Amino acid sequence: SRSIRLAVVPGDGIGQEVVAEGLKVLGAVLPADVKVETTEYDLGARLYHRTGETLPDSVLAELRDRDAILLGAIGDPSVPSGVLERGLLLKLRFAFDHHVNLRPARLAPGVVSPLGPDAKIDFVVVREGTEGPYTGNGGSLRTGTEHEVATEVSVNTAFGIERVVRDAFARAQARPRKKLTLVHKNNVLVHAGHLWTRIFQAVAADFPDVTTDYLHVDAATIFMVTQPERFDVIVTDNLFGDIITDLAAAIAGGIGLAASGNINPSGEFPSMFEPVHGSAPDIAGQGKADPTAAVLSVAMLLEHLGRTEEARRVEAAVYADLAERATLGARTTSQIGDALAARVAG
Amino acid sequence: SRSIRLAVVPGDGIGQEVVAEGLKVLGAVLPADVKVETTEYDLGARLYHRTGETLPDSVLAELRDRDAILLGAIGDPSVPSGVLERGLLLKLRFAFDHHVNLRPARLAPGVVSPLGPDAKIDFVVVREGTEGPYTGNGGSLRTGTEHEVATEVSVNTAFGIERVVRDAFARAQARPRKKLTLVHKNNVLVHAGHLWTRIFQAVAADFPDVTTDYLHVDAATIFMVTQPERFDVIVTDNLFGDIITDLAAAIAGGIGLAASGNINPSGEFPSMFEPVHGSAPDIAGQGKADPTAAVLSVAMLLEHLGRTEEARRVEAAVYADLAERATLGARTTSQIGDALAARVAG
Ligand SMILES: CC(C)[C@H](C(=O)O)[C@@H](O)C(=O)O
Ligand SMILES: CC(C)[C@H](C(=O)O)[C@@H](O)C(=O)O
Repeated sequence: SRSIRLAVVPGDGIGQEVVAEGLKVLGAVLPADVKVETTEYDLGARLYHRTGETLPDSVLAELRDRDAILLGAIGDPSVPSGVLERGLLLKLRFAFDHHVNLRPARLAPGVVSPLGPDAKIDFVVVREGTEGPYTGNGGSLRTGTEHEVATEVSVNTAFGIERVVRDAFARAQARPRKKLTLVHKNNVLVHAGHLWTRIFQAVAADFPDVTTDYLHVDAATIFMVTQPERFDVIVTDNLFGDIITDLAAAIAGGIGLAASGNINPSGEFPSMFEPVHGSAPDIAGQGKADPTAAVLSVAMLLEHLGRTEEARRVEAAVYADLAERATLGARTTSQIGDALAARVAG
Repeated sequence: SRSIRLAVVPGDGIGQEVVAEGLKVLGAVLPADVKVETTEYDLGARLYHRTGETLPDSVLAELRDRDAILLGAIGDPSVPSGVLERGLLLKLRFAFDHHVNLRPARLAPGVVSPLGPDAKIDFVVVREGTEGPYTGNGGSLRTGTEHEVATEVSVNTAFGIERVVRDAFARAQARPRKKLTLVHKNNVLVHAGHLWTRIFQAVAADFPDVTTDYLHVDAATIFMVTQPERFDVIVTDNLFGDIITDLAAAIAGGIGLAASGNINPSGEFPSMFEPVHGSAPDIAGQGKADPTAAVLSVAMLLEHLGRTEEARRVEAAVYADLAERATLGARTTSQIGDALAARVAG
């Protein structure tokens, strides 16, 4: 198609600033005859304070109709913890069945890793996005008293695990090293863990050329800082994926560079692309935020829409920019965006 | 008392070897008139294969009567994942109400951190040990079919959280920096998270000189590799504590150096001390295992029994040994134990 119908949710804090640069680069990389029809939705803390709503049904219905969603960041100290996260971000992931939460970690030339200059980091985490402890399936009894009991239920289904494991195997098969590591905690969370392990082993039979490995989540964090080169593709549950992808971002040069895709592979619902970083209210509005993660999220969006060539050009622009950063001095959010837009256009 | 009645559970793999060195150092550091009465219990894979049992009631009753327990490591590939972990290790922690799982992380001079020579790492994690997702409170439906649903329930009580949070505040207050960080995921696991947060804030009022902080578990893993100096004492739930203490061990020089105490502060039941590392079956029986974590666990045991002076001497011996390692060449498990025993005795 010659047009992309894009929903934009800038969200809170630095979300607005970084999304603007993402859109700038998107406009610059596409051929002149490809139109980007963007519709912006003002969701997040402002809407919540104005109306008490986090994601009105009418907005959800409109979003559903778009080709993809670009999201900035969600969260503000003025809103109680959990309200926007669950009422907006997780609601979108669940409503649109974003079961493949894709988070690449790659140490680009020129970027400093806390693990030093010799670290080899090039892997992708396939985080399950619609199950596990994220289902909101908990409660509390005698709330607010000294006898309170609070529970959180991790829900895991064969159906939900199989589809994400299969997706991860296919991704591993398409990469040169063809290695897939399952990360779980099957020696303690035995019911969920055995289900993940059983399905992982069953699906492996369909991908005989993919090397498989298993690590407990605690051990995985060790290897991430001692032998990150051992990872190629990782598949894991929603909560473990949340934790290890922040760690992965940190070793690969920081959360300011980490992109993610919340993917609905069937295309039944629009997929959503967002930087892994948060809304960083302390630096919001000052032009200090690094828009790189948002721009790399745009690259993932392009790839998802089948525009592989443009996706590669955006990535190449980012890598070229990162390689020169040490010599470039401090730049504002929009200066970085301008530089990237110029690179992809040129 | 002039005698210590110690239960020893060497367990599987390298457990036997490292515990032997721990006992060697314990014998060497104590004055001649202090008797250590050790009783060894052969629990783990061997017992399981022989009898199908993991922790016979009669053994549990005997253990209960001891001053403390020294444990090597549990786990063997010949036993299905989870059987020994839940039937033995976790059963001990729960039966003896080890609600304070204490895990110090300190980068000793001479030890190489993956974060480089300038990393400043000196914190202690107080991991809750008897609640959260470790309660074994899960199940599965339509097990083994394509319609399987598996759940894991995290159980959190005001009672259980308050006692461990209070313990952590007291530990923070006793340290020079007096800072306590709560690690949870209260924006997603809102019921458990809000309970932890509410109690943390309430107990903080009793410790006005302790600085408090909150981090989501994902963000905590980032700071652990980018700003480990920001941590002094951390308090967290059972599963998050499992994950971040392996990461903490990795940045502080490796799991071979990490000690832990499973503490029952009231003294109603014996506390249990164990290296954080596993049974490492691949190197078992070859004299390759580093007994340092087991020896440091003995130091924690001495401290718990009120033998602070001896605890400090064991630690000092370990630090002196670590500082010289680069010049010492390869040593076997028992050579390291001999060297440490000689240092504490001399
Ligand atoms: C904001 C929060 C709900 C979210 C998550 O836990 O998934 C974030 O940490 C992420 O990783 O995208
Ligand atoms: C072996 C396993 C049950 C255990 C845990 O998860 O607590 C271990 O990882 C630890 O940290 O002591």
